[in-house]
Amino acid sequence: MTTPLDTVLAYYNAWTGHDFDQAMTYLADDLVCHAPAGRIEGAEAFRAFMEPFSQILLKAELLASYGDDTTVLLMYGTTTRPVADAPGAELHTVRAGKIVDLRIIFDRLPFEQARAAQGKPA
Amino acid sequence: MTTPLDTVLAYYNAWTGHDFDQAMTYLADDLVCHAPAGRIEGAEAFRAFMEPFSQILLKAELLASYGDDTTVLLMYGTTTRPVADAPGAELHTVRAGKIVDLRIIFDRLPFEQARAAQGKPA
Repeated sequence: MTTPLDTVLAYYNAWTGHDFDQAMTYLADDLVCHAPAGRIEGAEAFRAFMEPFSQILLKAELLASYGDDTTVLLMYGTTTRPVADAPGAELHTVRAGKIVDLRIIFDRLPFEQARAAQGKPA
Repeated sequence: MTTPLDTVLAYYNAWTGHDFDQAMTYLADDLVCHAPAGRIEGAEAFRAFMEPFSQILLKAELLASYGDDTTVLLMYGTTTRPVADAPGAELHTVRAGKIVDLRIIFDRLPFEQARAAQGKPA
């Protein structure tokens, strides 16, 4: 029996392994994501948000992961091209083996600062 | 037997209840905190970082909490005076009933934007 934690760790391993096609197989089509910039509806819109992050990822380290029958909570550290230390936390709701709801927390400030330093538009 | 989760939830209830004196009773004197702005050493330095946040807190809601023999992971939503939706996640290490290590993740960007809008120095 695949647990919600199994599903979320498989998703985590896929996106941190730069395989977003594989990551998508764990997401419900009507996934809702609560991100720092606001609500994102649908797996394709979520991919447009998350895949670029996976592409700037140099290293990821899972710091903690817990789950029960419906819910999973993760914290991880990442090293990215623009920001050397960018940890994240994710709270997932899983139904029938797919992630249906995902709240993600990370600090946008160093990413904005890196963008500003490069003279790129926000 | 008090579990690490009991300790961390007691700490959470104290600070979100605006009782930082009580919150301090759950922190080891030599606590290390990994915050978005960097490393903070010692309970008093941590208080100088965290108590001002507790003072602008209007509402907190625990979204998920998990723990084992040494480690606790929390996610919560908050409403604060400057920022209406400011969720946070905390990974705690607990030893002998005291929090010895705490990694906290939140998005500093809306707080910086609120400060800039008020013309206050960072």
